[in-house]
Amino acid sequence: MSNPDSSSTGMAVQLVEVWRGEIIESRHRGHLIAVEPSGKNITQLGSPEVVTYVRSSGKPFQAIPVITTGAADRFGFNEQEIAIACGSHSGEPLHVETVLSMLGKIGLDGSALKCGVHIPFNAAAAAELGRSGRSPSALQNNCSGKHASFLCVARALGVDHADYWRPDHPVQQRVRRVLEDFTGATLGEAQCAIDGCSVPTWAVPLDSLAYGFAKFGTGRGIPTEHAKAAARLRQSCAKAPWFVAGTGRFCTDIMQLFGERVFVKTGAEGVYCAALPGEGLGIALKCDDGAGRAAQAIMAVLIVRFLPLAASEHAALHRFVQPVLRNWNNFEVGQIRLTEVLR
Amino acid sequence: MSNPDSSSTGMAVQLVEVWRGEIIESRHRGHLIAVEPSGKNITQLGSPEVVTYVRSSGKPFQAIPVITTGAADRFGFNEQEIAIACGSHSGEPLHVETVLSMLGKIGLDGSALKCGVHIPFNAAAAAELGRSGRSPSALQNNCSGKHASFLCVARALGVDHADYWRPDHPVQQRVRRVLEDFTGATLGEAQCAIDGCSVPTWAVPLDSLAYGFAKFGTGRGIPTEHAKAAARLRQSCAKAPWFVAGTGRFCTDIMQLFGERVFVKTGAEGVYCAALPGEGLGIALKCDDGAGRAAQAIMAVLIVRFLPLAASEHAALHRFVQPVLRNWNNFEVGQIRLTEVLR
Repeated sequence: MSNPDSSSTGMAVQLVEVWRGEIIESRHRGHLIAVEPSGKNITQLGSPEVVTYVRSSGKPFQAIPVITTGAADRFGFNEQEIAIACGSHSGEPLHVETVLSMLGKIGLDGSALKCGVHIPFNAAAAAELGRSGRSPSALQNNCSGKHASFLCVARALGVDHADYWRPDHPVQQRVRRVLEDFTGATLGEAQCAIDGCSVPTWAVPLDSLAYGFAKFGTGRGIPTEHAKAAARLRQSCAKAPWFVAGTGRFCTDIMQLFGERVFVKTGAEGVYCAALPGEGLGIALKCDDGAGRAAQAIMAVLIVRFLPLAASEHAALHRFVQPVLRNWNNFEVGQIRLTEVLR
Repeated sequence: MSNPDSSSTGMAVQLVEVWRGEIIESRHRGHLIAVEPSGKNITQLGSPEVVTYVRSSGKPFQAIPVITTGAADRFGFNEQEIAIACGSHSGEPLHVETVLSMLGKIGLDGSALKCGVHIPFNAAAAAELGRSGRSPSALQNNCSGKHASFLCVARALGVDHADYWRPDHPVQQRVRRVLEDFTGATLGEAQCAIDGCSVPTWAVPLDSLAYGFAKFGTGRGIPTEHAKAAARLRQSCAKAPWFVAGTGRFCTDIMQLFGERVFVKTGAEGVYCAALPGEGLGIALKCDDGAGRAAQAIMAVLIVRFLPLAASEHAALHRFVQPVLRNWNNFEVGQIRLTEVLR
């Protein structure tokens, strides 16, 4: 079962230090790359040919068929519903209502979702759910917006929706072709694994993923239909960023700050991707050990590096670039810091 | 603020692979060492002179004064209370009751605890707390048993307990000296940082930490008083392992399986330590990026390596050595595997 590519993934570079007191307690390594839609490499660290699963960073591509099949227009999706189709939401009440609204538009409810169940990412929402005596359902699952959109795509395609999540279902095959079109990668069985929410996730070289985001952000190098769909997804997310993640979440905070200037999407196992349309850039990074705390700080400093910023915007990003670590009494105990290569 | 030692910590070795489908999705690196109480090095990987904070792996040493000050006998601690003094408990109801019982023996309650608040580690206990409409208190904090024991030590010493958690308090100074005695390390201000629960945590070379566990397990190379106290702590933990962690937790499962044959204690940021008294070994390991999922699998395989096992015991450890990864629908999606050097 070993993949020769996985043993020759090259050298991850140390990118993040976790400080407590006067010493470095833990270290994170990874790979990153920023490219133009032509594929031209602007900057890289580590070995950006490393192959990794896109995980939730693939959601923007997974949402393209919502637009291109006409589902969004036929079922009257508003911006919030389009944004949550691209989102890894925190399971707060309005997220749940929005997913229910999408399902209602095709006469379905939460029972049609096959993403599985987890408690809301948002701690307050999880606590409130408990206090109300209710258990979470598939609706609170962070992928439920994506899954609701898959059901709507199946309806728009006129195919049975029951197995919408299986790799061989027309919806997932359509998603695969979209991802191939944007990234230039070839996605066969060897690249297909099962995501947390049970739909396929795809293994893509990190540089191809960055390339996909560059094209997603600029519309260049892809068919007009995909470029227009991407633009609509970006506009919706920029107008309704809370639905892409949620209260206090990085992707939401960044897109609330920058609107259409930054489209950013996190993925599990330390993946972070972004499109900077005005700069014509796509960015993809992978923390080698899968740590989200590292990937997020790296993405923050890359936004500082590439996005022209007003002084107030620079100040607003500082808490993401060098997060303070606090303990259970809220005492400051340490910091996450980027290494020399990134500072 | 940089510590030259931290930049020359040497090379962590790749120890764990996280597989999804046919590729390695993430990788964990670290250091490990097994030593005899003489300090003789039996096996090592990486750079075991690396300095790391002991975090909760220090709890066995932090509990020594409970015995040596006579607090345990004076206040009539049972085995469960002694075990929870060494523990990072899951905040289940019986854990909370036990901590309350310890505090009650010195006429105090949860309001005396300065560890701060977090929801129970145990998901069912957290959900039940929510359903009951209650918020967690310091009692549910995984360190509350340790903190209750500190308060009892203060009482036994006849000193004011209010600031028991501060580095300059007699209780914390006593703990520092115990840790120095067991590990042979010198612990000054530069080695002192603030733990999650606000008491000091100490930076110790990993090999010294292993050395401390070897002495803790065998009683060799330390004053009789410390050797006897360590034996009593180990016996209590072996008799009441659920109080050292909780339902479904590795430390509990291992000590339920092996009793006094293995004393194991986890610490935050990927630290795991063990004493194998019958084999005369102390083990310490640190996952360089801080991942508990990696540290746990490495500790499991080291137990397999060094502890003579019956076939049934070998089989019982398999699920820790090569954990299966499941998604929100409980589908098997991947595995955690040890690298070649450890297999």
